[in-house]
Amino acid sequence: MDRLKELLNSIREGKTDVEDGIAQLRDLPFADVGHTKFDTHRLLRNGFPEVIYAERKTPEQVADIFINLKEKCSVLATRVSPDTAEYVKNIFPEAEYNTLGRTLSYVKGAIEYKEGEVRIITAGTSDLPIAEEALVTCRMFGCRAEIISDVGVAGIHRLFDKLSEIRKAKVIIVIAGMEGALAGVVGGLVSQPVIAVPTSVGYGAAFGGVSALLGMLTSCAGGITVVNIDNGFGAACAAMRIINSGDSF
Amino acid sequence: MDRLKELLNSIREGKTDVEDGIAQLRDLPFADVGHTKFDTHRLLRNGFPEVIYAERKTPEQVADIFINLKEKCSVLATRVSPDTAEYVKNIFPEAEYNTLGRTLSYVKGAIEYKEGEVRIITAGTSDLPIAEEALVTCRMFGCRAEIISDVGVAGIHRLFDKLSEIRKAKVIIVIAGMEGALAGVVGGLVSQPVIAVPTSVGYGAAFGGVSALLGMLTSCAGGITVVNIDNGFGAACAAMRIINSGDSF
Amino acid sequence: MDRLKELLNSIREGKTDVEDGIAQLRDLPFADVGHTKFDTHRLLRNGFPEVIYAERKTPEQVADIFINLKEKCSVLATRVSPDTAEYVKNIFPEAEYNTLGRTLSYVKGAIEYKEGEVRIITAGTSDLPIAEEALVTCRMFGCRAEIISDVGVAGIHRLFDKLSEIRKAKVIIVIAGMEGALAGVVGGLVSQPVIAVPTSVGYGAAFGGVSALLGMLTSCAGGITVVNIDNGFGAACAAMRIINSGDSF
Amino acid sequence: MDRLKELLNSIREGKTDVEDGIAQLRDLPFADVGHTKFDTHRLLRNGFPEVIYAERKTPEQVADIFINLKEKCSVLATRVSPDTAEYVKNIFPEAEYNTLGRTLSYVKGAIEYKEGEVRIITAGTSDLPIAEEALVTCRMFGCRAEIISDVGVAGIHRLFDKLSEIRKAKVIIVIAGMEGALAGVVGGLVSQPVIAVPTSVGYGAAFGGVSALLGMLTSCAGGITVVNIDNGFGAACAAMRIINSGDSF
Amino acid sequence: MDRLKELLNSIREGKTDVEDGIAQLRDLPFADVGHTKFDTHRLLRNGFPEVIYAERKTPEQVADIFINLKEKCSVLATRVSPDTAEYVKNIFPEAEYNTLGRTLSYVKGAIEYKEGEVRIITAGTSDLPIAEEALVTCRMFGCRAEIISDVGVAGIHRLFDKLSEIRKAKVIIVIAGMEGALAGVVGGLVSQPVIAVPTSVGYGAAFGGVSALLGMLTSCAGGITVVNIDNGFGAACAAMRIINSGDSF
Amino acid sequence: MDRLKELLNSIREGKTDVEDGIAQLRDLPFADVGHTKFDTHRLLRNGFPEVIYAERKTPEQVADIFINLKEKCSVLATRVSPDTAEYVKNIFPEAEYNTLGRTLSYVKGAIEYKEGEVRIITAGTSDLPIAEEALVTCRMFGCRAEIISDVGVAGIHRLFDKLSEIRKAKVIIVIAGMEGALAGVVGGLVSQPVIAVPTSVGYGAAFGGVSALLGMLTSCAGGITVVNIDNGFGAACAAMRIINSGDSF
Amino acid sequence: MDRLKELLNSIREGKTDVEDGIAQLRDLPFADVGHTKFDTHRLLRNGFPEVIYAERKTPEQVADIFINLKEKCSVLATRVSPDTAEYVKNIFPEAEYNTLGRTLSYVKGAIEYKEGEVRIITAGTSDLPIAEEALVTCRMFGCRAEIISDVGVAGIHRLFDKLSEIRKAKVIIVIAGMEGALAGVVGGLVSQPVIAVPTSVGYGAAFGGVSALLGMLTSCAGGITVVNIDNGFGAACAAMRIINSGDSF
Amino acid sequence: MDRLKELLNSIREGKTDVEDGIAQLRDLPFADVGHTKFDTHRLLRNGFPEVIYAERKTPEQVADIFINLKEKCSVLATRVSPDTAEYVKNIFPEAEYNTLGRTLSYVKGAIEYKEGEVRIITAGTSDLPIAEEALVTCRMFGCRAEIISDVGVAGIHRLFDKLSEIRKAKVIIVIAGMEGALAGVVGGLVSQPVIAVPTSVGYGAAFGGVSALLGMLTSCAGGITVVNIDNGFGAACAAMRIINSGDSF
Repeated sequence: MDRLKELLNSIREGKTDVEDGIAQLRDLPFADVGHTKFDTHRLLRNGFPEVIYAERKTPEQVADIFINLKEKCSVLATRVSPDTAEYVKNIFPEAEYNTLGRTLSYVKGAIEYKEGEVRIITAGTSDLPIAEEALVTCRMFGCRAEIISDVGVAGIHRLFDKLSEIRKAKVIIVIAGMEGALAGVVGGLVSQPVIAVPTSVGYGAAFGGVSALLGMLTSCAGGITVVNIDNGFGAACAAMRIINSGDSF
Repeated sequence: MDRLKELLNSIREGKTDVEDGIAQLRDLPFADVGHTKFDTHRLLRNGFPEVIYAERKTPEQVADIFINLKEKCSVLATRVSPDTAEYVKNIFPEAEYNTLGRTLSYVKGAIEYKEGEVRIITAGTSDLPIAEEALVTCRMFGCRAEIISDVGVAGIHRLFDKLSEIRKAKVIIVIAGMEGALAGVVGGLVSQPVIAVPTSVGYGAAFGGVSALLGMLTSCAGGITVVNIDNGFGAACAAMRIINSGDSF
Repeated sequence: MDRLKELLNSIREGKTDVEDGIAQLRDLPFADVGHTKFDTHRLLRNGFPEVIYAERKTPEQVADIFINLKEKCSVLATRVSPDTAEYVKNIFPEAEYNTLGRTLSYVKGAIEYKEGEVRIITAGTSDLPIAEEALVTCRMFGCRAEIISDVGVAGIHRLFDKLSEIRKAKVIIVIAGMEGALAGVVGGLVSQPVIAVPTSVGYGAAFGGVSALLGMLTSCAGGITVVNIDNGFGAACAAMRIINSGDSF
Repeated sequence: MDRLKELLNSIREGKTDVEDGIAQLRDLPFADVGHTKFDTHRLLRNGFPEVIYAERKTPEQVADIFINLKEKCSVLATRVSPDTAEYVKNIFPEAEYNTLGRTLSYVKGAIEYKEGEVRIITAGTSDLPIAEEALVTCRMFGCRAEIISDVGVAGIHRLFDKLSEIRKAKVIIVIAGMEGALAGVVGGLVSQPVIAVPTSVGYGAAFGGVSALLGMLTSCAGGITVVNIDNGFGAACAAMRIINSGDSF
Repeated sequence: MDRLKELLNSIREGKTDVEDGIAQLRDLPFADVGHTKFDTHRLLRNGFPEVIYAERKTPEQVADIFINLKEKCSVLATRVSPDTAEYVKNIFPEAEYNTLGRTLSYVKGAIEYKEGEVRIITAGTSDLPIAEEALVTCRMFGCRAEIISDVGVAGIHRLFDKLSEIRKAKVIIVIAGMEGALAGVVGGLVSQPVIAVPTSVGYGAAFGGVSALLGMLTSCAGGITVVNIDNGFGAACAAMRIINSGDSF
Repeated sequence: MDRLKELLNSIREGKTDVEDGIAQLRDLPFADVGHTKFDTHRLLRNGFPEVIYAERKTPEQVADIFINLKEKCSVLATRVSPDTAEYVKNIFPEAEYNTLGRTLSYVKGAIEYKEGEVRIITAGTSDLPIAEEALVTCRMFGCRAEIISDVGVAGIHRLFDKLSEIRKAKVIIVIAGMEGALAGVVGGLVSQPVIAVPTSVGYGAAFGGVSALLGMLTSCAGGITVVNIDNGFGAACAAMRIINSGDSF
Repeated sequence: MDRLKELLNSIREGKTDVEDGIAQLRDLPFADVGHTKFDTHRLLRNGFPEVIYAERKTPEQVADIFINLKEKCSVLATRVSPDTAEYVKNIFPEAEYNTLGRTLSYVKGAIEYKEGEVRIITAGTSDLPIAEEALVTCRMFGCRAEIISDVGVAGIHRLFDKLSEIRKAKVIIVIAGMEGALAGVVGGLVSQPVIAVPTSVGYGAAFGGVSALLGMLTSCAGGITVVNIDNGFGAACAAMRIINSGDSF
Repeated sequence: MDRLKELLNSIREGKTDVEDGIAQLRDLPFADVGHTKFDTHRLLRNGFPEVIYAERKTPEQVADIFINLKEKCSVLATRVSPDTAEYVKNIFPEAEYNTLGRTLSYVKGAIEYKEGEVRIITAGTSDLPIAEEALVTCRMFGCRAEIISDVGVAGIHRLFDKLSEIRKAKVIIVIAGMEGALAGVVGGLVSQPVIAVPTSVGYGAAFGGVSALLGMLTSCAGGITVVNIDNGFGAACAAMRIINSGDSF
């Protein structure tokens, strides 16, 4: 905004002529021309971690980012292989590796938690890696979160035992592979926002998560929403959007 | 068997020479040569109805079959359109039309019911046509059956209210569209054989029953089996195979 | 709860013995045994409309439901054909038909709107039927909502013109067919919860909404969630869950 | 049941008041409150093996489970890699590894076999791993079972040679890859329950078992049911449900 | 060839100069320039019918073709609707309509049949329309052909009863919907060329012929070949190629 | 046949009584009972090689088969890995390995070639492995065959240069990946039987051969037939069926 | 641009102060603020027709647009049903309907044709509707275009006869259904830009254009590009982009 | 052409008789008979590099080609593994390896650049390998090209910052994975030809590039064309066709 104001002042004062003004307007970083706020990354930068998708990055690249950012902000890397994690930790021991969730994180200062908790529910223990990715992401974003695991529909009493605990959450993330039925059952039992994460757990007709994805999309329980297969990080982002809603910019 | 015996006797007695014997053996109806029993249709014919898949048949063709068979056996036609049903009933008023299940049936004599009941459970009321097809088929095959409808997982207490009734069955048929989750939940609650029928109920990512089919195939509840989409008739046949097992030929 | 209390009192007072008590516990409607709240339908019933999926219902059935419920609660029917709507309105003129969204609704008393608005954004005018379904559903659930239409990414300045208005919402529903790219673009521009609805608009490789669905699921903008193809009603339910979150039961 | 009885007695005897009783009822493991039997796992535990899906478990985890359970019950682990098997057997030599079927099993005491045998038929020798998984599972569940292998439809006389043996079974499991045609042919030749298992054997348009799966689902032989691709374990569970039916709870 | 010869002679005789010769060579119908034979349509024209795919043609267009060609050659139209057939027959009564196969044909002179017969086998009566299309096409091409219908694998003795008749053919066309298993079974029983035609008969997971197509492609019986779904015409063409092979140009 | 004759003679001579005769008839290898010829494997055994699909066999297993059969017949193994080939050749140096086609073969005596040649045409050099598999198979079956490679449609003059050579064949096998267009172009240029083999050559939307498969199935050139993806062996079997047709049993 | 200039002048002259200037900048139509040119619709508006996708519009809506725009610019409507066309022509007889291509167009003034022609090639006559849509669109955009039809690869000499004519084009659009092979063959024969349009012509494994689409995407001829199935309009737009390139803004 | 002329002259002069002339015409390389120009490879050979698809070639094969061609022309190999690259460079150090794009290239003499630049835009840094392949290919073909990376739609201001630079191009290549939305957004902002390349970047419902492919095909921005998944080389070829158009043969 400052640069725009400065420019218009300069035009007004005759220091910049109109043609020049038009040219400079065109050169201003887009955001400065009055569309300032559309960078959600900004949101993350204010006290939020920088996020790295480490899948196709070398250990050196990941380490560099941690070293470079550690003074400025917290850092969260997802899909970090054990080898990369070990490499980074050798150089930057403050980084913390979540073996199951394959996240590498560094918290600068203390996390300031917001109001409202997230419950992350898994159908089976095989869904835990995705749950852990969601868990770490939630926490790095300042959302309190807990995992309730192994409450799949094949033994549905396990779910009922946890219902009152689940109902305390502001947002519920349901993580399930195979037929993905847990999302619909939970959706029918609670009134909170339910974010469903299909996982690639299962074989044969599970088709790498497609069956769970379709099951969640077509659930007859109203108002369930779905993210990509194995996308624990995305579910946590969606939960954060809800937790933050009300004080959004 | 008789023809075979006769032939061998004729060889023995020198009335038929060996080369001729070989030729005649080749001409005998296959089943007679010692592989007599592999015609399961035979099973159905002894007191069971003749079954007609009416989808691509004209009203006249369907009526003909009823008229021709009425003296010999019961008749069951599936996928019968209302127009065809009306046409047949005008000619053969003893035929009974199930409007929802689109079956047309004629029972010759009284049905002799076997031991063991079938419970047909539907997730929603939209699954009822398939359930009715299964119901009529079961009964025509001599299996007592009842429908318990609209107990889908989005309001799971409705299922629990019916559990003790469901558990009285020898075989359970679960019929569900959309995500098809009901099959897995029921499978986790009972020890009986569970035959799951995905239905084409639903829109969008339901993909005409594919989502339900995949959900049922990948259910984490052990030992659920699945038939084709909307195949209420097939589920009833499978149930009949189980009801009959023990006294199979 | 009352029946349970009564039963335990009766046990305590010796009127019911323990074995009988166990048997009666088993017979109690499930919800009464201490799992009372898992019926989200209840949520809807308290001041919320009864919801009917009219797709496979006859005009008579839909009319009956309106007539029967009009004294008790508001009623919302979705996927109502013009013929059915006309039939119902002849009998029950208070019902209001949304021609585009194909909803039929009756509001008993006045809607009490909650805090927080929903903005429903469409990529093209062909997406409006789904948007209208979402709009009516939101309002029937007590969520203020407005549609901003025809701001698809092929002429992205149209979206930017509406950005400040969009950012006033607590929840944003993005409705788009074809490549479904609008959801990701909006997700990158706002921090609110974004619920994406793929529509079946488009031909050829649009595959009846599958392309839009996949595009939305794989969007690189973090934290977008998705519902079934053409499921405006589901998106509104999900929005309502978020609007209500905080005062959930 | 005991805890419930105890609680009600305690209420009766005035040791626990009604409000407390309600609270405690809520805390009881769900199954105890009158829905005792819907845990099919329980079924397995009474003399049945505990079952472990070893796919994503470490050798240490699998070994731990065997060591911990060996005093209590039989144990069956499926999808066990040779490395894991070797690791476990080093620690717990009583465990038996089926190299083809990749099962690891430990039988506590002697298996009590039930009435009724299972015949497991394979189309080719490449289907044997799935057949062995089914075989071991059947036996661990107390069902006598035998494999009849390599009787695929391309040389159909091989099947006929085995027909009388096949017809002795109470349940028939048919395992086939590629076009999966064996299931339909067998289904047309016998009256028993037929459980079809598509396998991922084949290349190209076999699509990892999808062709066999579709072939089995659409078989024109009535009453065939299908389980997931390569799911020998599931087929055995389904067989066990049938073998047990009649004396189900 | 004549035009080419004529041209070269004309060059030789000096009546045409070289530059003109090059230009004329370029203008000659391509086939005449020395690549004469690659037009298989020619094959058909020598005593063979002209073939019309009538699917998207108006009755007038189809009638015109018959009228125009009747002096020159036989004519075969496939995928002819009853309305079109009626229209054409009113104008050109010599055309013969096959109601089931939806072919319209006119034979100029007598068909000269070649050595070697084609047997067209169907799994069910619903496959007859495709079989009739193949039958008429074969005959119009001068191949004797007969249909053997309703010998699907669910009652496999029906097939065996016809085996010796089937084995008399030089080429066998197998037509089957649903799981398409008949092709593999026949392929295992005969040594002749087997051309498999998947049909769109079936519902649900038959997916409009895809299951049959996949089943036929992955058949374990060696040397079966497949044509497009419902392509009776194509199968007949392939049969004709084989019948003709040996005296191919 | 001999055993059958012997049996009937024994009956005739009174050495075997009729009841025994029936029992023994049942025990005879099926084919002998008058359905003698339906084993195409027999066809292969008379001077033809035994065929082994080596994909899932150990080197030891493959070697054993070669050692055991070498006295009786020729042997052809397909899908043989280099390691297996080396292992077998160490033990049985007479086996010949085709590195590209991954076949291992042993010819007992000399191959007796039949009338009629096979031309195997490939679109690109990447399709050569499948072509070599087809080539070796053809020759082992007594069909002369040659490969014409790299004549894909992107440089169509290469194909025309080879046309006269191609037209000399009795059967043409066309092998192509990616869009598979070569089959249709060749089919339009020749009148012989054309067997199309889609290959998994290509990336992205080639989908492992699916695009080529679909292209070949939908080719507008009449009478092309298709086998499974990468199935050079199957194409050779189909060619052999055609080469043999006329003298089929 | 004028409004922007005016505004800056007004700021310069002190008529508008800086804060107001910023506010007004924000209110300006987005394109005016320095991003003027990213509206390709503008491109069309300068002498180009307004384009309407009529698929889901009522006859009245389409007529209104023609009436309202006729004074301002040319108008092109695509996917216009015959009924809509008739309705519009009754009101606005100057509109011209292309029956095959289903376009309705009105040219205001004369079309100014650009340098460079487009050749639109179809494989079969069934592809003509798409070709006509492309043709009309090209011409309305000021690109000369001609159709060359029915030169599919099954009779490839027909294509060669037209090659020199095809090579005169600046851009070539190839339209083909079924296997879509024509695009690759043409791509190998010319050096111009080739835009391929798969069509939904064909049945069975043509899958409504998917086979043609995949064939075109995987073509081995380098540098072919593809648009959506049946998208003649899009191909014409792409051609126009190329024709215009060089004098792009 | 010369050979043809020579032949006709020889006929004219009586040196070759007519029958011989016909035979020789048949033997002439096809292109010489008046269809001279249809070899686009020729285009590449005149000053253009020879192109090698190295995917399935051995290091030795690739090295041979470089060694053999280095005197004659430039050489470009795509999909070269690091191992192959190292092998070739040891033998032929003049070859240049692009590690990201996996191209190996050798420029003979200097590249003569044509008028008109190509801009290659990527959505994310993970798309860079495809962009580099396109970049090297463009340059080897004499098209100036630059990459603008990481301007995906989730942070759309990054794209706007580069718009004026992008608009300087004659052809724009847009490379994006996941939902592929960047192509449509760019297509709406520029009037140049836009060639979209979907990449296999992404997981889950990205389905190896299918989602991006579908998104690009169904983009609502008119006139975008698409090449195969990950086909940077093909996009560069298409760009070259456009750059060259106008001076095409």
